[in-house]
Amino acid sequence: MDSRFRGNDNQGYKAGVTAESTFIEMMRAIAQDPAARGLIDDTAVIGLGSETLILTHDMMAEDVHWLPKADPADVAWKLVSVNLSDLAAKGARPLGVLLGFMLGDSDWDRRFAAGLERVLAHYAVPLLGGDTVSNKGDKRAVGLTAIGAATHRPVPSRGGAMAGDLVYVTGTLGDALAGFELIEAGLDAGDALSAAYNRPMALLAEGQALAPFATAMMDVSDGLLLDAGRLASASRVEIRIDLDVVPLSAPYRAMRGASLDSRVQAASWGDDYQLLFTASAGVLLPVPATPIGHVHPGSGLTLFEAGVQIPLPPSLGYQHH
Amino acid sequence: MDSRFRGNDNQGYKAGVTAESTFIEMMRAIAQDPAARGLIDDTAVIGLGSETLILTHDMMAEDVHWLPKADPADVAWKLVSVNLSDLAAKGARPLGVLLGFMLGDSDWDRRFAAGLERVLAHYAVPLLGGDTVSNKGDKRAVGLTAIGAATHRPVPSRGGAMAGDLVYVTGTLGDALAGFELIEAGLDAGDALSAAYNRPMALLAEGQALAPFATAMMDVSDGLLLDAGRLASASRVEIRIDLDVVPLSAPYRAMRGASLDSRVQAASWGDDYQLLFTASAGVLLPVPATPIGHVHPGSGLTLFEAGVQIPLPPSLGYQHH
Repeated sequence: MDSRFRGNDNQGYKAGVTAESTFIEMMRAIAQDPAARGLIDDTAVIGLGSETLILTHDMMAEDVHWLPKADPADVAWKLVSVNLSDLAAKGARPLGVLLGFMLGDSDWDRRFAAGLERVLAHYAVPLLGGDTVSNKGDKRAVGLTAIGAATHRPVPSRGGAMAGDLVYVTGTLGDALAGFELIEAGLDAGDALSAAYNRPMALLAEGQALAPFATAMMDVSDGLLLDAGRLASASRVEIRIDLDVVPLSAPYRAMRGASLDSRVQAASWGDDYQLLFTASAGVLLPVPATPIGHVHPGSGLTLFEAGVQIPLPPSLGYQHH
Repeated sequence: MDSRFRGNDNQGYKAGVTAESTFIEMMRAIAQDPAARGLIDDTAVIGLGSETLILTHDMMAEDVHWLPKADPADVAWKLVSVNLSDLAAKGARPLGVLLGFMLGDSDWDRRFAAGLERVLAHYAVPLLGGDTVSNKGDKRAVGLTAIGAATHRPVPSRGGAMAGDLVYVTGTLGDALAGFELIEAGLDAGDALSAAYNRPMALLAEGQALAPFATAMMDVSDGLLLDAGRLASASRVEIRIDLDVVPLSAPYRAMRGASLDSRVQAASWGDDYQLLFTASAGVLLPVPATPIGHVHPGSGLTLFEAGVQIPLPPSLGYQHH
């Protein structure tokens, strides 16, 4: 999830988008400190003594980021993972999290707390504090602040891709999309695809290993194509993606096939939390990753299929649910 | 405001209190890291390289912490001040804040943003990032994470008061109470009392100056008596407060008098954001503060009026609105 005052701006509610865009512009006008990185990167980066702090805050809201029927433990898992994924893209080591929690139904609260305990234990990240408020409305929202320390400097940003670099992505794409479709169809059977949607993994070790090699890095939260376009924009380069080599998992292929349509969907749905990065062509990477394109002088995102340029799809990114 | 998973637990809604207490107990069970300070202090304290980070997250919710008629700029002011007040009580220098914002009415959003800009400029604290979500409910909540660096170690906690210390409080108490009464009566005229309620000030410079001298320190967010009782409990001492010397402002006295009832109310309403601290009897303090009592071996809070012990009032602390 992209945390920097972007929220659900791809959600398709016109009024909401306008209100949100307006608010984000107001926040950008306020956030003039260099540490805020213009609110266009995934995290804030701030020097403190001999260390560099990495800070992010992501929220999730009922009916926006989770459906009422969702397991509260999954909501807790996702809330922690999407925040830690932002730290992963900076090569940061997490120091801890603070929770902002809107109380509601006590059974829901209890299951959320149990899920929170499990996900924090999984990542070995301490809960440092937080706050609760009564929920006076009928929908709730939860927020998490994650604090990390850089393990490599300069801290990777979206803005360092250089012409000649290769574009890489870790893991496979589209699994969360396929999992969401299974869950929507009532077919969630605890399989790998459903888990990819319900319990995404923040790639902390991979991010730390890649940080010294990546010229630019971010997590794929809102769709590979949308996020690659953002990386191109921040780096002031053109990024060319070869759709034929976009990595798909075996379960994904078995369920949704590997047609051009299916690959475009896998590359434009989001919730993957893989790491998208650029690196010099000659570099041997410490982590498995698929080269999916090239960085060129110019601007914007262009797509290729079997060596031939094809038009961009109407939507490059995640439609939040 | 007390940030450590305490929220509005003095609010008097039985069901809400139970749900909140239960959730807070679950969080305490999770937060085993020493940096979390058992979730009973005002902030998390975590070493990083040569520095010590101070972290807090406070939320505010409509109909709990502000009335629907409140000026959104005041909500922004208070949200920032209550978080920075927690840093002040640690003698911390603020590094920045992250905002969690639930979008709603665009005029409200715009006025909140303008207020946020003003309050951050007042404190010279940068906005580092944050997130927005659509508000699918009918009430909204906002949250803020404040990050600071300790200016003095050991970082003051609630737990260091020692028998023989004096108990001090900065400034005057009850002004926010009087201001709230003026506002409720429709008499808010931009006066000092209304401002004390609408625009509390975090005492950052005072906290930094006092940190080397205070054996224990916290901000008075929920009422002097309630907070002094918490300090006594954390320090495992008895705290005796002399109600005759509880400091009241001239406007407060003019409006509400200085009877015992009035002084008890000033000492048990909250929202003052003054600093409550203990220090050795012989210490010359770098900041004006009123000695209001003594630390004794024992436990709990006891009150004195003209040298005679009096019973504790039925409510020691803030009834949130």
